[in-house]
Parts: sequence; C-alpha cells; structure tokens
Amino acid sequence: MDTDYNRIAGGSVERIAALSDGIFAVAMTLLVLDLRVPVAAAIHGEAGLERALASLAPHLLVYLMSFMTLGIFWVGQQTQLNHLARADRDLAWIHLGFLFAVTLTPFSTGLIGSFIADWIALAVYWGNIVLLGAGLFASWRYATRAGLIRPDTPADIHCAMERRIMVAQALYAVGALLCMVSTYWSLGFIVLVQINYVLAPRVLGLNRL
Amino acid sequence: MDTDYNRIAGGSVERIAALSDGIFAVAMTLLVLDLRVPVAAAIHGEAGLERALASLAPHLLVYLMSFMTLGIFWVGQQTQLNHLARADRDLAWIHLGFLFAVTLTPFSTGLIGSFIADWIALAVYWGNIVLLGAGLFASWRYATRAGLIRPDTPADIHCAMERRIMVAQALYAVGALLCMVSTYWSLGFIVLVQINYVLAPRVLGLNRL
Amino acid sequence: MDTDYNRIAGGSVERIAALSDGIFAVAMTLLVLDLRVPVAAAIHGEAGLERALASLAPHLLVYLMSFMTLGIFWVGQQTQLNHLARADRDLAWIHLGFLFAVTLTPFSTGLIGSFIADWIALAVYWGNIVLLGAGLFASWRYATRAGLIRPDTPADIHCAMERRIMVAQALYAVGALLCMVSTYWSLGFIVLVQINYVLAPRVLGLNRL
Amino acid sequence: MDTDYNRIAGGSVERIAALSDGIFAVAMTLLVLDLRVPVAAAIHGEAGLERALASLAPHLLVYLMSFMTLGIFWVGQQTQLNHLARADRDLAWIHLGFLFAVTLTPFSTGLIGSFIADWIALAVYWGNIVLLGAGLFASWRYATRAGLIRPDTPADIHCAMERRIMVAQALYAVGALLCMVSTYWSLGFIVLVQINYVLAPRVLGLNRL
Repeated sequence: MDTDYNRIAGGSVERIAALSDGIFAVAMTLLVLDLRVPVAAAIHGEAGLERALASLAPHLLVYLMSFMTLGIFWVGQQTQLNHLARADRDLAWIHLGFLFAVTLTPFSTGLIGSFIADWIALAVYWGNIVLLGAGLFASWRYATRAGLIRPDTPADIHCAMERRIMVAQALYAVGALLCMVSTYWSLGFIVLVQINYVLAPRVLGLNRL
Repeated sequence: MDTDYNRIAGGSVERIAALSDGIFAVAMTLLVLDLRVPVAAAIHGEAGLERALASLAPHLLVYLMSFMTLGIFWVGQQTQLNHLARADRDLAWIHLGFLFAVTLTPFSTGLIGSFIADWIALAVYWGNIVLLGAGLFASWRYATRAGLIRPDTPADIHCAMERRIMVAQALYAVGALLCMVSTYWSLGFIVLVQINYVLAPRVLGLNRL
Repeated sequence: MDTDYNRIAGGSVERIAALSDGIFAVAMTLLVLDLRVPVAAAIHGEAGLERALASLAPHLLVYLMSFMTLGIFWVGQQTQLNHLARADRDLAWIHLGFLFAVTLTPFSTGLIGSFIADWIALAVYWGNIVLLGAGLFASWRYATRAGLIRPDTPADIHCAMERRIMVAQALYAVGALLCMVSTYWSLGFIVLVQINYVLAPRVLGLNRL
Repeated sequence: MDTDYNRIAGGSVERIAALSDGIFAVAMTLLVLDLRVPVAAAIHGEAGLERALASLAPHLLVYLMSFMTLGIFWVGQQTQLNHLARADRDLAWIHLGFLFAVTLTPFSTGLIGSFIADWIALAVYWGNIVLLGAGLFASWRYATRAGLIRPDTPADIHCAMERRIMVAQALYAVGALLCMVSTYWSLGFIVLVQINYVLAPRVLGLNRL
C-alpha cells in the first residue's frame, strides 16, 4: 500500500511524443474529409465540375489554414519535448489536454468552413487556438518548475519559449477582434500571422515575433 | 518441424507500444466525428447557429468523458509497458484484446451521446470500461507470472498496480449502479471519478485511490 | 549518373515497422465504423434500443473476426521484422503490397457484415486473407534469398515460418470451401481456426499447427 | 529576448519521420473509404451483388493507383530522411508542405474515381503528384544547401536523387498531356510508369529511370 501509482505513471517522453504524432497525423488527415468530392449525379458536363470545384475554394482555404495551425503547434510541441529530460504523470496529462484541443480542430475547421461569415464560428475557432496555446504554455511552465528540462538547456530558452507563445496568442486575439469589422478580415489576419510563423522571413525582424 | 512459431512470436514491447499509440490516437480523434457540424441549410441567422451549437453540449461532455477514459487507460498501459523487460505472444494477445476494447470506445461513446437517458446505453459504456480494466489487470497478472517484468522493479509496485485497477473498477461499478436513480447521476459520478484520477489532488488522500 | 537510386532506397526496417503499425492501427479502428449507432429518431422506448443493438450482433461478430485476422497477421509480420538485419527497396514494396491487403480489410469486413449469407462476400473476404498470407510468405522467402535475415536466427525458424503460413492458409481454404454447405459454416470454421491461433492451446498439439 | 526560437525548433528527424509515417498510414487507409459497400436494400439476389461489385472496379483501380503513388513517395521520403544528419525548422516546414499534399490524395483520388472521364479531375490528380514531387525536390535541395546531409553520403547520390524526381515528374507530365487523347490513356500511362517504379525491372535499363 506504500508505493504511489502516480509516482511511476506517465514517465516516458517517447510515448507522449508517439501518441502526439499519431493524433496530429489523424487530425491533419481528417481535415480533408471536409473537402467532399462532388456527387456525380448532381454534375452536368465539364463546366458543372469546374463550378463544383470552385465552390470548394473556401473549404480548401480553411483547410490550408488549419493545416498550418496544426503544423505550427506540432513544431512547438516537439521543440518542447526535445528539451525534456523526462516526464511525469502531471506533464502527461497536460499534454493529453493539449491533444484534446488538437482533436477538436477538425470540428472547429468544419464549422468555420460552413459558416465563414458567422462570428460565432470564428469565436469557436479562436477558442480552439487559445486552448492549444494554453496547453503548450502550461506544459513549459510546469516542466520548468518540476525540473524536467534537460540540464544542458540554455537559460534564455525559457524566456524565448514563453514569449513566443504570448506574442502569438496576442496576435491571434487581435485577429479575433477584427471580426467586429468582418470575419473575412479576421481570417485574413490570422492567415497572415501563420504564414509569418511558417516562413519566418528575416526582414523587419518578423522572425523574432 | 522443431521450432515452435509461438516461442518466437510477439516478443517486442516497442511494437506493442507503437501499435497501442496508433490505436489510441485514432480512437481519440474519431471521437470527434460524433460532434457533427450543423448543416448550413438548416440554420437560419446567428441565433440558429448558437442554438445548434448549444444542442451539441451533451455530445461535447460525453466526448470529454471518453477522452479522459482513454487518457487514463493510455497512462495505465504505458506505465505497465515501461516496466516490462520483454514481451511474448500471449502478452501481445492480451494487449490486442485490450486494444479491441479501445476501438469499441467510439461506438459506446456515440451510443451514450445519442441515448443519454437510457440505462442500456450506460450499461454498454460501463461494459466497455470493465473490458479495458480487465485487459490491464490480465496483462499485469500475466507479465508477473511469466517473469516479463524488469528485475529492477520495486516489489510493492505489483500491489500498487493491481490495487489501482481494482479500486477504479469498484468506483466505476458504483457509478453504473447509480443508474437505478438516473443515468445522469451515473455519468456525473463517473466523470467525478475520472477527474480525480486526472488531477490526483493531494487532499484527503484522494490521489491514493 | 552512376549511383542507382534503387540501391539506396527503402533500407530502414524501423520505418517499415512504423508505417505498418500505423496502417494496422487505422484499419483496426476503422472496422468499428461499421458498428453504426442506431439513429435516435428511429428508436421508440427502451425495448426499441435493445432490439436495435441486438440487430448489430452479426456486425459485432464479423468485427471481432476481422480484428482477430488483423491481430494474427500483425503478430506474424512483427515476428518477421524482428528477425531482419536490414531491408531493401524490394522488401519494402512486398510489405507495401501486404499493407495494401490490410487496408482492404475494412471493406471486405463491411461486405460480409452486410451480406453474411452470400458466398460472393465470403469469397472476397477469403481472397483478402489469401493476399495477406501471400504477402507474408513472399516477404520471408525474399528476405531469406536476399540475405536480409539476422545471422543469429536459428536455421529451423525458416521452416517454422513458412510452414505456419501454409498450414494456416490451407485451413482458411477449407473454411472457404465449406461455403458450399453454408456461409455460416465457413465463418464458424474460420473463427475456430483463428481462436486456435490466438489462444494456441497446448492440448492435442493444436499450438503446433 | 536573445535566443531565437526558430534556431531551436523542428530539429528532430525522428519526429518528422514519425509524423510522416502516421499521415501516410491514415491517408493510405482512408483511400479505402471510397470503396463503398453496396447498400443491402438495393441488392436483389446474388447476381445483384456481383453486378454491384463489378461497378466498383474503376474505384478499385484508382485506389490501387493512389496506393502506389503514396508508396512511391513514402519510399522516396524515407530514403531522403535516412541520409539526414539532422533537421531544422525550415526543413520541417518543407516536409509539412509535402505532407499537406499527402493528405490531399484521398480527395483527388475520390475525384478521379467519380469523374474518370473528365480532364479536370485528371488535372487535379496530376497537380497533386506535382506537389508531392516538388516537396521532395525542395527538401533535398534545401538539405544539401543547409548542410543537413550525413557526411558519409556519397556525392553522386545528390545527382541520383534529383534526377530521379525530375525524370519521374517528366513522365507524369507526359501522362497528363495524354488526356488530350483521352483520360483513360493518361491513367493507363501513369499506372505503367508507377508499376515500373514499383517493380524496377532490370531490363532495358528501365530501373535507371
């Protein structure tokens, strides 16, 4: 009755990484299910297929946006895990919470694909991004306090990691607020922020955001 | 004709872990397919979307509950696998049986999401949890007897592991019985038990359950 | 222009194992999509749900059978991969062919679940099993000839591996032929053969099949 | 504020490989969802099921073609990753772009399965293949320039890798152009090219393409 189960549970960084890669892989591929192949019976002639594909364009854009979202958070999570010496059960649960937000992404993506002009859909999508950011922030904060970080990690990486998440979330919040003008402005701004994080251009110091 | 195929089969703990991570990842992400995006044609105005999303709330709660269920059993399984020195074909099949119960989870989750007030749906869901618990219990019992545990494992972990599963299953059984009052009481109790296992609060010794 | 791309391609056993674990995980979990949650609107009272679930029973049995099929071939494939020192591009393609047969399993399972009394559905299902067996057989035969097997592998394992596949395929063929009596006899026989391979009972030498 | 987040992000080749195996596994298995099991209510007698299965034949052929496409690019990607000493964030994003094209494959496959005689569907499919090729080409070119290749890699592999992709893409372009005769000629030619890459026959120097 003496050994605490919680002391020995969830200690493998490799297993957390493997589950994460699996969930990211499934979520990224499920996004495509929202791109529905037009039903053959409803299409008349080649112009019909062209029109049907053109009407998929907003779904394709939203899909691309969500793929970038997941890519950015996948890179962020693996960067954190690379710096961990070990894990414990609390950290495992923080990452499971983060992965819960990942599995919500196909839903919130489908919602905004169908209701692109509706601020409620945008609010749900933004809430999803906030959850993802909060998960990574909590994971790094906890890992630092619990002494799970690899000892050879330079001290200034701690600031870089937390600052990165805060700045990104602030930019996403600005994007969400733009929906007071129009949800298209919101989505455009969010996509610009994401393209900046993907390309990390070395002009104007934008890669330091 | 002399070598027994069964003697050389299924001996890799890493492959069992990899298949498990894959199945947990797919099952956890498939749960979200139950959260169906409202059909645009059926929604009129913003209040319509708000109402449609509100009507998804029970599905979201059930989804969260099942994600916690799978998370708890994923942590439990990886804790076991971390303590194994090697595997054999019988252990591989016990884990395949456990994974079979994992793949049933999206079905039993969808069932209780659609029939939340029906005790039959609750019984199916509880049966699923019992299968998951029985799989982990059988795996640990077998691994102990077959000498597959790593020699550096402290002896009292054996008790901790089995006691953990028994206590949890007893609590889930209490939850299932509460459906004689109402299935909502059952679900509420089960969610409370799960939150306790996720958070493992250090008050009242609840983390020792 | 001198280096042959084919000489350097596909050489990682680990990557073949990882892709295989992923495909098996997805295929095993997709099987459950055939267990459709009854539509709430079509159910009247508790007896209605009971009846609806009872009508799912053949699907559940077929699902269990296919999960055992995939489990048997997953154990068989990992046993082979464990004995490989390295891979090459031809072996990678043999395993991709084997994995193609794995991805067909959800389709042939769904077919036999819907047309359980039709010998055509049974023939498709059996064809799927033959493809799986042929893939493993070709893989071992090729690996032996190409010298990819680990040098510490006992010589009599070669016979054990090939004999195992041949005996199993002969039994499955007997099962398929039984459909001349009735497809239920076929399915019953196939399930018995599979249970034997799963449990490998040590009576009557059945574990030496 | 001194450490650049981008300098420490995305550095693990193993994680890129694991995410890729996951996405390929899901995409390869999702292809089968296009093979829909005939609806039992619409089938009358055994001849009815035979006819229904025969009408699935074009879908099965397209499915086989896409499985080969994904197999060829999976082998190509893992061959590259095997030669990398390390990764960085730019390389990670090039591979995420490549994986985006992988997740599009189930969509473009479904499109050509439903509109096999329509050149627009063929153009979308070909565009998908071009994206896949461009991803691998960019990955190798970038890895070479950024010094990420393992130092023990023979110099002539660089040419072999890039030439391979260019020749294959040229052949696919010829195939796409054949749609001016008929889309069936296009598909037939593309399948022949793929079979050549899968089998790599050692006659006529076809394995040196």
